[in-house]
Amino acid sequence: MFNINSFLHSDALGPAIEWKGYPKFNFIGGHNDNESIPITSLKESIDKIILKEGKTLAKYGLESGPQGYLPLRQFISKQLKKSASINCSEKELLVVSGSLQALDLVNQTFLKKGDTVIIEEENYGGTISRLRRIGVNMIGIPLEKDGMNIEALEQTLESLKKKKIRPRFIYTIPTIQNPTGTIMSVDKRKALIKLSKKFEIPIFEDDCYADLIFDKERPPAIKSYDNDGYVIYCGSFSKSIAPALRVGYLTADWSILSRILPYKTDAGSGSLEQMALAEFCKINFDSHIKILRNELKKKSDAICNALDKYFGSTADYNKPVGGIFVWINLPNNVDTSRLYELALKDGVAINPGNEWSINSSGDHKIRLCFGNPSIEEIDEGVKILAEICQKEFGIPLQIANS
Amino acid sequence: MFNINSFLHSDALGPAIEWKGYPKFNFIGGHNDNESIPITSLKESIDKIILKEGKTLAKYGLESGPQGYLPLRQFISKQLKKSASINCSEKELLVVSGSLQALDLVNQTFLKKGDTVIIEEENYGGTISRLRRIGVNMIGIPLEKDGMNIEALEQTLESLKKKKIRPRFIYTIPTIQNPTGTIMSVDKRKALIKLSKKFEIPIFEDDCYADLIFDKERPPAIKSYDNDGYVIYCGSFSKSIAPALRVGYLTADWSILSRILPYKTDAGSGSLEQMALAEFCKINFDSHIKILRNELKKKSDAICNALDKYFGSTADYNKPVGGIFVWINLPNNVDTSRLYELALKDGVAINPGNEWSINSSGDHKIRLCFGNPSIEEIDEGVKILAEICQKEFGIPLQIANS
Repeated sequence: MFNINSFLHSDALGPAIEWKGYPKFNFIGGHNDNESIPITSLKESIDKIILKEGKTLAKYGLESGPQGYLPLRQFISKQLKKSASINCSEKELLVVSGSLQALDLVNQTFLKKGDTVIIEEENYGGTISRLRRIGVNMIGIPLEKDGMNIEALEQTLESLKKKKIRPRFIYTIPTIQNPTGTIMSVDKRKALIKLSKKFEIPIFEDDCYADLIFDKERPPAIKSYDNDGYVIYCGSFSKSIAPALRVGYLTADWSILSRILPYKTDAGSGSLEQMALAEFCKINFDSHIKILRNELKKKSDAICNALDKYFGSTADYNKPVGGIFVWINLPNNVDTSRLYELALKDGVAINPGNEWSINSSGDHKIRLCFGNPSIEEIDEGVKILAEICQKEFGIPLQIANS
Repeated sequence: MFNINSFLHSDALGPAIEWKGYPKFNFIGGHNDNESIPITSLKESIDKIILKEGKTLAKYGLESGPQGYLPLRQFISKQLKKSASINCSEKELLVVSGSLQALDLVNQTFLKKGDTVIIEEENYGGTISRLRRIGVNMIGIPLEKDGMNIEALEQTLESLKKKKIRPRFIYTIPTIQNPTGTIMSVDKRKALIKLSKKFEIPIFEDDCYADLIFDKERPPAIKSYDNDGYVIYCGSFSKSIAPALRVGYLTADWSILSRILPYKTDAGSGSLEQMALAEFCKINFDSHIKILRNELKKKSDAICNALDKYFGSTADYNKPVGGIFVWINLPNNVDTSRLYELALKDGVAINPGNEWSINSSGDHKIRLCFGNPSIEEIDEGVKILAEICQKEFGIPLQIANS
């Protein structure tokens, strides 16, 4: 047999492990609520668009070219204006295969091994792992309840400047920050733009949760305060419609977008999904989002109730104001990497905090996603988790019997 | 304004040019025949599957995990057995976003700047440009009517071995080779496997046109003769169903596939397209392919007729036995890079041969794709091309008036 292991370069990524199905209590991954997938109206939208424009599937890029299906870009342009106060034309939009491709494309365009990037110190695990893989030096900025600590950011930028290090970008998830769930204030958004201009460092604004604030309107995007082309903005339909539809988008000034586009070498993202979304969204987006937010809020309530019931004051967290996850601080004697391993054996999948932070601040934290499990599974899974914690780490002292 | 140009690393790719629509006579790109897109049965398939399994769209990877939608992998496994004599289980298949992603993934897994790769000396432009971008040393093997010159390949491998250079893989499009349209004989397929084992060099078999032979069955894939895990095989639905559906696949021994999978960082390819294809293909694939082949054969006949009519003996080509393109050798005084530029001004897009060969063998050749233009457009476009050639290069001496 051919021996691949001795053949590959020594820094090749290690092998994937065969997938064996989901864990019974799945609190990881940005999965969404099964029952909220708008099957009927998606079907109607597809029926309509495929009969009308199906023949265009014969062309790579349909009749829209490499930036993605034009009616979808037109919807995104309108929607960003309405919900995020962003002014961008369809010419400044690139449809991508989910916001993960957006991350990869921006990274490929900007980064090389040894580069420096500024990020919120607790952050999306997929961002952290990508930057690690490239060999980027990540500098973490602490988070406050209203977003990044701007003073710390300014000091960091000053100190880097003195060392003649120019970071490649400031990466931020300002709205329902992953994993902390915080929302950056308008003042901080404006301050961030000012710093970006002052130090001439672009901002990469990852806004894939912004549609999911439960009870109020989202603040304007950082990008909306950008008059000088400093902000690269990405969004996604994964969280608002369905994760398995791999459709996200990037918007930036054409001078930037035209440098990112050549790295997209896949001849366009799936067109059927783009067509379906364009047709669906122009009629149903707002009403669908309302229903989805309600469902997610119920699940958020359910996980908070379960945490309170089984962990009591042992679990320190802020109640989610939107999104699909809660970030929980456990006592210092709980090693959450070990908790992760033990829980998985009992069918409970969680994100250990050290994968979601670039320093030790996450060592006693966990992230629990509540979008996909049912309310019953949420209750049962959190209970099992509390029982493991009690057995292994002696906390909580008591677990309520439901 | 932020100045991206002074900010990016010096080896960043140059900017994309804004897309302005297709040329009137579009003989480039692997587009397919508009009228052959099976709209009605695609719609029926989607309706059925979305009502049945639409809720699974709430999960990244549906219920199938990171290798792609299981029923689609099951169909591919069956189809590869039936049509290409390949034995692979669904566990040895990875669904990707078109065979272009397959190329990128295999390249990322195997290649670094300075590596050596063996390819047919006239080859797919997208493969050549990818390898150039990585900085790979390409060694070209001449093509004969029945595929790669195996003696030349063996000599090349011997000579590299003496220099202690181990190529990373042998890349081949054995069936309807792009651009030459040749089909590798069974004897050469077997010989290739022998050489692969002897020199311990994997083969990357790109088989995306294999379904499109007009009048006879395809030969077994090279992969079908591989008992020792030397062959990585990729295929696609772009050519057989629709290019804008971005769905292709890779199959290899799990020891190899498990090393490729970690480079797929997009959380799966579009699921709606995978579900639609799985449902469509299990009922309609064979009948659809028959219809498509007939339509493409008509267009192949049309372009050959047009070439004969307007270019006469000036255009030297082999009549396509399948696929969507014809490779044409023009007299030595025709600089086809210049022809490409002139033709584009007149609304005729062609592939100049030098982008489809790694040495000067393509300098007087052009590739014309005939899948997308109508029969009328084929005739008119080839006529305009002949007129440009006559005016610029003095050939053909006379152009027939139709």
